[in-house]
Amino acid sequence: MEETFVPFRGIKKDFEARLKCYKQDWTGGFKAGIRILAPTTYIFFASAIPVISFGEQLERNTDGILTAVQTLASTALCGIIHSLVGGQPLLILGVAEPTVLMYTFLFNFAKDRADLGPKLFLAWSGWVCVWTSFLLFLLAILGACSIINRFTRIAGELFGLLIAMLFMQQAIKGLVDEFHIPERENPGLPQFVPSWRFANGMFAIVLSFGLLLTALKSRKARSWRYGTGWLRGLIADYGVPLMVLIWTGVSYIPAGNIPNGIPRRLFSPNPWSPGAYENWTVIKEMLQVPVLFILGASIPATMIAVLYYFDHSVASQLAQQKEFNLRKPPSFHYDLLLLGFLTLLCGLLGIPPANGVIPQSPMHTKSLATLKHQLLRNRLVATAKHSMKDNSSLGQLYGNMQEAYQQMQTPLIYQQQSMRGLKELKDSTIQLASSLEDIDAPVDKAVFDIEKEIDDLLPVEVKEQRLSNLLQSIMVGGCVAAMPFLRKIPTSVLWGYFAFMAIESLPGNQFWERILLLFTAPSRRYKVLDEYHATFVETVPFRTIAIFTLFQAAYLLVCFGITWIPIAGVLFPLMIMLLVPVRQYIMPKLFKGVHLTDLDAAEYEESPALAYNTATDVDPAMKTGSFAESGENLDEIITRSRGEVKHTRSPKVKTPAGTPASDSRGMHCPRYTAHNPSVSELKEQSPRTSGRGALSLKAPEGLSVIDPDLK
Amino acid sequence: MEETFVPFRGIKKDFEARLKCYKQDWTGGFKAGIRILAPTTYIFFASAIPVISFGEQLERNTDGILTAVQTLASTALCGIIHSLVGGQPLLILGVAEPTVLMYTFLFNFAKDRADLGPKLFLAWSGWVCVWTSFLLFLLAILGACSIINRFTRIAGELFGLLIAMLFMQQAIKGLVDEFHIPERENPGLPQFVPSWRFANGMFAIVLSFGLLLTALKSRKARSWRYGTGWLRGLIADYGVPLMVLIWTGVSYIPAGNIPNGIPRRLFSPNPWSPGAYENWTVIKEMLQVPVLFILGASIPATMIAVLYYFDHSVASQLAQQKEFNLRKPPSFHYDLLLLGFLTLLCGLLGIPPANGVIPQSPMHTKSLATLKHQLLRNRLVATAKHSMKDNSSLGQLYGNMQEAYQQMQTPLIYQQQSMRGLKELKDSTIQLASSLEDIDAPVDKAVFDIEKEIDDLLPVEVKEQRLSNLLQSIMVGGCVAAMPFLRKIPTSVLWGYFAFMAIESLPGNQFWERILLLFTAPSRRYKVLDEYHATFVETVPFRTIAIFTLFQAAYLLVCFGITWIPIAGVLFPLMIMLLVPVRQYIMPKLFKGVHLTDLDAAEYEESPALAYNTATDVDPAMKTGSFAESGENLDEIITRSRGEVKHTRSPKVKTPAGTPASDSRGMHCPRYTAHNPSVSELKEQSPRTSGRGALSLKAPEGLSVIDPDLK
Repeated sequence: MEETFVPFRGIKKDFEARLKCYKQDWTGGFKAGIRILAPTTYIFFASAIPVISFGEQLERNTDGILTAVQTLASTALCGIIHSLVGGQPLLILGVAEPTVLMYTFLFNFAKDRADLGPKLFLAWSGWVCVWTSFLLFLLAILGACSIINRFTRIAGELFGLLIAMLFMQQAIKGLVDEFHIPERENPGLPQFVPSWRFANGMFAIVLSFGLLLTALKSRKARSWRYGTGWLRGLIADYGVPLMVLIWTGVSYIPAGNIPNGIPRRLFSPNPWSPGAYENWTVIKEMLQVPVLFILGASIPATMIAVLYYFDHSVASQLAQQKEFNLRKPPSFHYDLLLLGFLTLLCGLLGIPPANGVIPQSPMHTKSLATLKHQLLRNRLVATAKHSMKDNSSLGQLYGNMQEAYQQMQTPLIYQQQSMRGLKELKDSTIQLASSLEDIDAPVDKAVFDIEKEIDDLLPVEVKEQRLSNLLQSIMVGGCVAAMPFLRKIPTSVLWGYFAFMAIESLPGNQFWERILLLFTAPSRRYKVLDEYHATFVETVPFRTIAIFTLFQAAYLLVCFGITWIPIAGVLFPLMIMLLVPVRQYIMPKLFKGVHLTDLDAAEYEESPALAYNTATDVDPAMKTGSFAESGENLDEIITRSRGEVKHTRSPKVKTPAGTPASDSRGMHCPRYTAHNPSVSELKEQSPRTSGRGALSLKAPEGLSVIDPDLK
Repeated sequence: MEETFVPFRGIKKDFEARLKCYKQDWTGGFKAGIRILAPTTYIFFASAIPVISFGEQLERNTDGILTAVQTLASTALCGIIHSLVGGQPLLILGVAEPTVLMYTFLFNFAKDRADLGPKLFLAWSGWVCVWTSFLLFLLAILGACSIINRFTRIAGELFGLLIAMLFMQQAIKGLVDEFHIPERENPGLPQFVPSWRFANGMFAIVLSFGLLLTALKSRKARSWRYGTGWLRGLIADYGVPLMVLIWTGVSYIPAGNIPNGIPRRLFSPNPWSPGAYENWTVIKEMLQVPVLFILGASIPATMIAVLYYFDHSVASQLAQQKEFNLRKPPSFHYDLLLLGFLTLLCGLLGIPPANGVIPQSPMHTKSLATLKHQLLRNRLVATAKHSMKDNSSLGQLYGNMQEAYQQMQTPLIYQQQSMRGLKELKDSTIQLASSLEDIDAPVDKAVFDIEKEIDDLLPVEVKEQRLSNLLQSIMVGGCVAAMPFLRKIPTSVLWGYFAFMAIESLPGNQFWERILLLFTAPSRRYKVLDEYHATFVETVPFRTIAIFTLFQAAYLLVCFGITWIPIAGVLFPLMIMLLVPVRQYIMPKLFKGVHLTDLDAAEYEESPALAYNTATDVDPAMKTGSFAESGENLDEIITRSRGEVKHTRSPKVKTPAGTPASDSRGMHCPRYTAHNPSVSELKEQSPRTSGRGALSLKAPEGLSVIDPDLK
């Protein structure tokens, strides 16, 4: 996206682009049918559970003026509106931790002021929202988002990891607190005698670890060896919500002989309890706020605006990473504008505003990719089976599959890209076919395993639509009514879930994977090459990788430290924005250009490098190296393979040569770089060849692999 | 071993055969150096911990006449003697559950008899031991063990699984009891109020699962990707004892605010407490036992004799399975004779006798195989590195390695087998070498990863010696003195350890693997073929496998049920012995001969089938398909690959053809059987070809694989 600061141009472009595919956003969603519920519930839990516990936090901090009811209401309201009229429907909105911190600060400030006090707190924070939305309008109109490209991988992933750390911190803190007497509770209660407190703590450990471990396992269900396919699919799709239910059930097993209050459960008022609605009439009160405070509200407003501008954009960016092969355009400017309106609305309603959240947004895209894969798969399998019934040749067979595939394509915005996608498919299929047997002979059913074939052929694609987002927002809204049930969930299960979210967000984060790489024994590094891995692993000397990573890690710790500072802590995003100039002006002095390109491709760098790093190199590997073993390693692909991917089940790795253990520079193995397309090579590299290259990378037969460099 | 019932012949043969390698049993052990401590400690814990908890059980059942002190003493004493003068030093002796049950029965019988009573209980049980040893002498002298071959895999593995079930049952029962007030305890104690009991139970869950999970993980440490090699090795070798220490330490963390007695810990008298020695003077009292009871003692004696005959022999058999490639001869007859003496000795000392135990004995052999592998590996790596320094060619290099390998061989009892072993190695190395590059060119260090190479070449071998057994027995004896420390171990850690032992004993048990196979989704069965797997997976129709397995499972459940019968339950071994005639006369009527041969090779079946099943087919795969990735999947080999092994990373599996999903008969995939050598083929199949076959099976380059059936 070019950097333009001409007022309204960005918004206009976004709006028009998204308008083109608005209808399809809905039709596509409904076409998916019942299966859409899998990603929906998955994301619903991921966004509802944190919002609830943030609500509890807010309740403690604001003497109960704001509760989980308000945070849920805000999340639902903003979510619904965004899914209906928002730009990028993959983006998930929610009330996030920073917002909670800001509101805590506002309350502490307001409650001591004579002419504000708790009574006018919401009215005043309403004014803060007014200012915030005003600033967001400005930013959106002036096209501030067009510099989003300058937030490169290094910034985005650092932010992602920071969020993961904050979630994990919350989980640990919460678990530890299970051993202590909570604030606002009467220490005299029976469940707070030492023995019961200890019992509660231990029970909490069992529940939270139980949830964490089972949830992590269930996500891998597709690759399980036992149980029927549909069962495995069901568990993989609905496992996490299921585990929350199961462990909540477990928490009731010892009900008999223990006082209630053990284990501790969610504490939230019923939405229909008196006073839950007091604050829905803020607008009237807003006029009672003294002018001085109205003006003063602009100061915290600036902080919030900066915060939202960053959070919202980065969340949206992470939800649209290159390797997801999205077909529909982004919409940063327009979404920021909309966020302004939403903030205003929430302010006037006296509820804390919601904004784009991490890691829920990327999680959303991932789960939709899984969905799309399943849909494509079923369709193609059906087609193939059918054409095998009338003994058509492999050629015809794949012909029909091509057709079916084409029919299922979403209207193509990025023409050229998708064209290549199809070409890819054709090339590889034919190749694979011929490697199997005479292409014109009727297909031998015993030899030809359709399902596996198709899995090998399917590219990563995302079911881009608005339905899942709308439904999950509505369900979040439903939580307000379902509060009595939600209160049955033990807090310890919550902590387990926080840990789960933190861990789920790690794989695919190259920063995280580089950290792991530092701890990998040199003699084991060749294993990294056996899996999907980013190209830098082969092209950048280990020492450079190490330095780059250590620098980033140090920066991360500084940011993490800042979050501990009472109120300025909310501004840690500023630290991360500071990375933009650092990356742009300082790092090129410290690292070789090529290495930077591999470690952190920036769009403002010279384009061939870009072409190499993202488009040309990602897609083949993605499109062909994909879903071996019936889609089970889909997560593999989508997570492990963020950014430039290369799958090397190619023989080179297996031969001792592939084992760079003996190589002084660790990962940097000569024969790889030799084989690695340099920028110049890539210029004249036609998609076709890159396609064949990609295929040979995956071919397990080791037949189509006996290629130039081995002959 | 041929079936002879000529008195003393078996004993004589055993004795002479073992005498040949007696010296080497010791020298070999000491040559191993410090590393011998790894298997030693591993087995020490595996045999000490159950013995201690059996001791506690016995203490409860005999009103404290027999305690953990006696069980430990007996285990140590018998272990030391057996390791010094016993036949098969791989066999581990210990006081086992059945013995405990028998002694409980004896006590309950004796204590109510006017002229016996608790006072003469030990004297009387001394007489029982006298009778038992007499019967054992008879069985040994008359060569009863020569029918051991009739205890085929089906019986041995059923027994192994039964033991595993009993261990797991013990673990679960123990864990549940942590929530209740133990017998013999004063319910008034503070730690038995409901709250603390609940707390204790939850704490127990945390501790036992903590131990179980970490112990299981630590066993896999060699394949970890992080941490340096020596650290990984250390954890893999000493991880389990380490975890027991760690979790015992954890159990002390909340010491501050909780009453002692939480968590519950081992309860055992100090060996020097008064009365601990009362019973060491049984011999005198034995004369006071009325004659009638002396004669009556022969009845329980018969049961015990039968029990020991079976336990001892099967334990010894499982410790010497074919796939361990043991070089030294077995010694069933002589060991049974020795057991007779040991029983007599224990009886006169008034301590419960020990006998061969499962799963400790097979665990012992496994850990020694790991050791041997490491020793060989280091030696060969050193040689290779050295000859690479003076730029020798691959040919020379492997030449030197051959030499070193030869030097490290134990004196070869089974000449022909070991000869093939070496031939194997030579063939495969040269083959692999040539597949890499010109064999006479000096080795390119960058390309050639010695360690990996060597791992690929090393056969499974066991460090057969007496030292580890002796040391672990002495350490068990040391426990008597270390009792004050042992009592710091929480009982919950014990339960976790029981579960760990049960699970550790499962992999490699083909019965267990067939059960898993039944639950494997048909579309996933091809994965089994990707790993090391027994040939029956390919040669026997799935339906037959299923029926065979279900029959065995039903039989297992019957045996398990029998163990619940109060006292006759001790005789469940009779049920298992009953399998011998069933297997021999009934099953051949139900199943095809070839299938039976694959599912349960019996030595009394026609020999070519035997040759095919065990020798010819095991070794190549074992010797060449082995330790890829620096010995980490050693466990793989030794466990997964019990019995006939075939490693199929060959391309055939990867091609759709290899995926029998579409095949109605499930695992039974035509192209496999086609390629699978029939008995007749095997007759003219020279070792060399079988060697090449095996190599092509493993060759990852997919080069040496382009074989007749693919061309």
